[in-house]
Amino acid sequence: MLRRPQIAVLGAHAPSPRLYAECELLGRLLVDAGCRVVTGGLAGVMEAASKGGSSSTKRRGGDVIGLLPGTDADEANPWVEIVIPTGLSLARNVLCVTSADAVIACCGRAGTLSEIAIAWQLGKPVIALDLDEGWASKLAGEAIDDRRSDRVVRATSAAEAVAAVLAALP
Amino acid sequence: MLRRPQIAVLGAHAPSPRLYAECELLGRLLVDAGCRVVTGGLAGVMEAASKGGSSSTKRRGGDVIGLLPGTDADEANPWVEIVIPTGLSLARNVLCVTSADAVIACCGRAGTLSEIAIAWQLGKPVIALDLDEGWASKLAGEAIDDRRSDRVVRATSAAEAVAAVLAALP
Amino acid sequence: MLRRPQIAVLGAHAPSPRLYAECELLGRLLVDAGCRVVTGGLAGVMEAASKGGSSSTKRRGGDVIGLLPGTDADEANPWVEIVIPTGLSLARNVLCVTSADAVIACCGRAGTLSEIAIAWQLGKPVIALDLDEGWASKLAGEAIDDRRSDRVVRATSAAEAVAAVLAALP
Amino acid sequence: MLRRPQIAVLGAHAPSPRLYAECELLGRLLVDAGCRVVTGGLAGVMEAASKGGSSSTKRRGGDVIGLLPGTDADEANPWVEIVIPTGLSLARNVLCVTSADAVIACCGRAGTLSEIAIAWQLGKPVIALDLDEGWASKLAGEAIDDRRSDRVVRATSAAEAVAAVLAALP
Repeated sequence: MLRRPQIAVLGAHAPSPRLYAECELLGRLLVDAGCRVVTGGLAGVMEAASKGGSSSTKRRGGDVIGLLPGTDADEANPWVEIVIPTGLSLARNVLCVTSADAVIACCGRAGTLSEIAIAWQLGKPVIALDLDEGWASKLAGEAIDDRRSDRVVRATSAAEAVAAVLAALP
Repeated sequence: MLRRPQIAVLGAHAPSPRLYAECELLGRLLVDAGCRVVTGGLAGVMEAASKGGSSSTKRRGGDVIGLLPGTDADEANPWVEIVIPTGLSLARNVLCVTSADAVIACCGRAGTLSEIAIAWQLGKPVIALDLDEGWASKLAGEAIDDRRSDRVVRATSAAEAVAAVLAALP
Repeated sequence: MLRRPQIAVLGAHAPSPRLYAECELLGRLLVDAGCRVVTGGLAGVMEAASKGGSSSTKRRGGDVIGLLPGTDADEANPWVEIVIPTGLSLARNVLCVTSADAVIACCGRAGTLSEIAIAWQLGKPVIALDLDEGWASKLAGEAIDDRRSDRVVRATSAAEAVAAVLAALP
Repeated sequence: MLRRPQIAVLGAHAPSPRLYAECELLGRLLVDAGCRVVTGGLAGVMEAASKGGSSSTKRRGGDVIGLLPGTDADEANPWVEIVIPTGLSLARNVLCVTSADAVIACCGRAGTLSEIAIAWQLGKPVIALDLDEGWASKLAGEAIDDRRSDRVVRATSAAEAVAAVLAALP
């Protein structure tokens, strides 16, 4: 079995410097732990997690996957190794979730909120990095609806988020 | 100009009898007001709004549109006139929003939450029918994030929701 | 049962004047015969069929459906009544086929070829209007592969194409 | 720059034993040459190319990418390392093309024909492995339409196909 866990890091284009740094650490720790990092392949949180993932000393190749909204592979940030230009615009957000064994939501604008909700629907473990204002923080520790008995897992640091992911994987 | 406003009615498979009845009224009032009704084409809220829309005395043809997750047109509820079997599974939810000039969210499970968030991202007017527990009620009157200066509009009845839609359309 | 047959008219942005005129007639005859017309909603063959459909004296509302590659409804040609802005770019071509009970391929560039092939895969009746050079003409009367026992039906005029559609529908 | 060329190997579920063997060799030679292999992730040609790619002694990780039509990662063949369960059913074929820097079409049923046509539309180099009956063989050496000045490149062996890919990449 060659497959390694694929973890989506979900977040916005314009994170605070503190959140950018934490997401970079998050990407690195995920690859350190033997996971691959899935993002939307663009800037901000997506770039930070990609950059972090590609800086891991445990990198083994193909660890940073980017699913772009457009059809031009050159729009990916430079740390994306596997680029999937979908051409699906917003529907690509759904694929960021279907491509992941678990998701980590960082910060909290509408795009991230939709991805948390989709991950919940699809039965994927959802970890929320509670660092900034917004939906990841608001939903940390909550149930989105009653279809599942678990909750969105709160993590207050990259290290806690990775530990939560590893605990949630089968 | 032949196009009439297309309004998405978003909600779950298993509404309460009270919500089903209100969504049926909602569909009827939307078509009465000269709009078309867009839904996911299946059961529950989708069926109620479709049934209501098709019962309007102002019906002019093509008023009830259903965007299915699968590829089989026969999965549509019997009140869908225009059936778009997408085969996109969950990504079809995105199309329910892109196909609408405004959306009305009814009840509040994860699927509806994701659609509210996507509609917010796309700049579409969002009306929440505050009748049941769940996300439509929680988000009524709130801003999803700071990209827009407006808020999710609270409506406490089908009639209020239709009035809010008409006020929000250009 | 409110649903009427939905027939996709597939073809390019820049048809010859003769083909444009035949596709306009095709749209009109389809609506005359009680069908709805599905197109990609833009210019050329799509516009001709939409315009023709909306000029039928048998029009009953919602007869012209356009599935756009982008998310902006205003990109539809002015004869589209039901506009579905998908945001899926090229993947919207697949939806033009899944939304149809049968397809009529006009002219013959790569986009139309892909749609003929997809319709064949999905088991939909395929009619080819053999008027111009290109794939519709080349494939008229042929089998795409051996999964089906029928063939792409050749039609040499709009009237023949509509007769073939009506014969092919269940 | 971490990205390596991503080459889609397109073909059917039930190739002849000879074609299966050639596609396995094709996958291996692509990875030997420093490329990654993209397929639809299921059986037949997709499995052969995945298996071949994962057997290369030059494997560096993440070399075999599978884009599934469904949402269940476990449907991938066991040689897929990076699995993207799209849930898009047939529209996933479009993503097999958008994800590739060049495509190699093997055998010739309707699905492969649609992918050749989409690749042509998107301006991607198209190589046809002319081993079996069907569309890859028929289109080898041909132009799909006049939008491009090049042609579908004929290859009569895996080695020729890889040489053609390397010649076609920028």
